[in-house]
Amino acid sequence: MLEVKNLLNEVNSVDELYVYKKIARMNGNVLSVVQVADRTLDFHVHENSDEMFCVLEGSFELETSEGLIPLKAGEFIIVPKGTMHRPVVKELAKFLMVEFEGTLNKENSGDKYED
Amino acid sequence: MLEVKNLLNEVNSVDELYVYKKIARMNGNVLSVVQVADRTLDFHVHENSDEMFCVLEGSFELETSEGLIPLKAGEFIIVPKGTMHRPVVKELAKFLMVEFEGTLNKENSGDKYED
Repeated sequence: MLEVKNLLNEVNSVDELYVYKKIARMNGNVLSVVQVADRTLDFHVHENSDEMFCVLEGSFELETSEGLIPLKAGEFIIVPKGTMHRPVVKELAKFLMVEFEGTLNKENSGDKYED
Repeated sequence: MLEVKNLLNEVNSVDELYVYKKIARMNGNVLSVVQVADRTLDFHVHENSDEMFCVLEGSFELETSEGLIPLKAGEFIIVPKGTMHRPVVKELAKFLMVEFEGTLNKENSGDKYED
C-alpha cells in the first residue's frame, strides 16, 4: 500500500503538456504533476482550497493582483484560498501541484489560456 | 503575503539536527523541514493525519509492519493515518515533512529514540 515515488520520474512520465497526473493523495489533498510551456491561464480564485506550486524543473511566474512573482526549480509558493492568481509560463516548466481534491477543473487548470 | 521558499535553503538554514522548522501551512497541514542523522524513532501511529516524508538530500528507510522501505533524495512516501511506522535514519538526511497541524509531538518526532 505504501508506495515510494520519485517526483522527477513522475513528471517525466507524462508525455504531453498540460496533462495533470495525480500521483498521491494526502489529508484530502491531491498531489499532481504537470509539464507546462508557453501558457498563461486566466486569473482565477479557488474559494475552498489553498494551492501549492512547487517547481521541479524550469521556472515560471505566478501573477497576483500585486504583480509577478518569479519561481525556479526547488522553490515553492502557497496561494491561500480566495487569492486571485494565475501562472504565467514561458519556457518548459515541471510542477508539483497540491490542492484539495476537486479543486482543479477545466476553467482553472488549462482549458482556457491566452497568448 | 505570498512568499517563495526554496526547500533546500530552508532545511539548510536549520543548524541543529532534529529541529523541525515550520516553513508553510496549507489546508490545515504544516510543511516542516528537518535534518536527521543516526536516529531511529519508536514505532508510532498518527490516528488523525496522513504523513508525507519527502527526502531533499540523503536517504533513509521507513519501517512499517511490512519491513523497511528505502527512500532517497527526490523521493516521497505518504503514510496513511493509522499506519504504524518509524523512520530509520543512518547517514545525514534532510526532509520535508507534511502532516495536519498538531500531529507531531515529543512522543513521535524525536524526543524518544533508540540506537
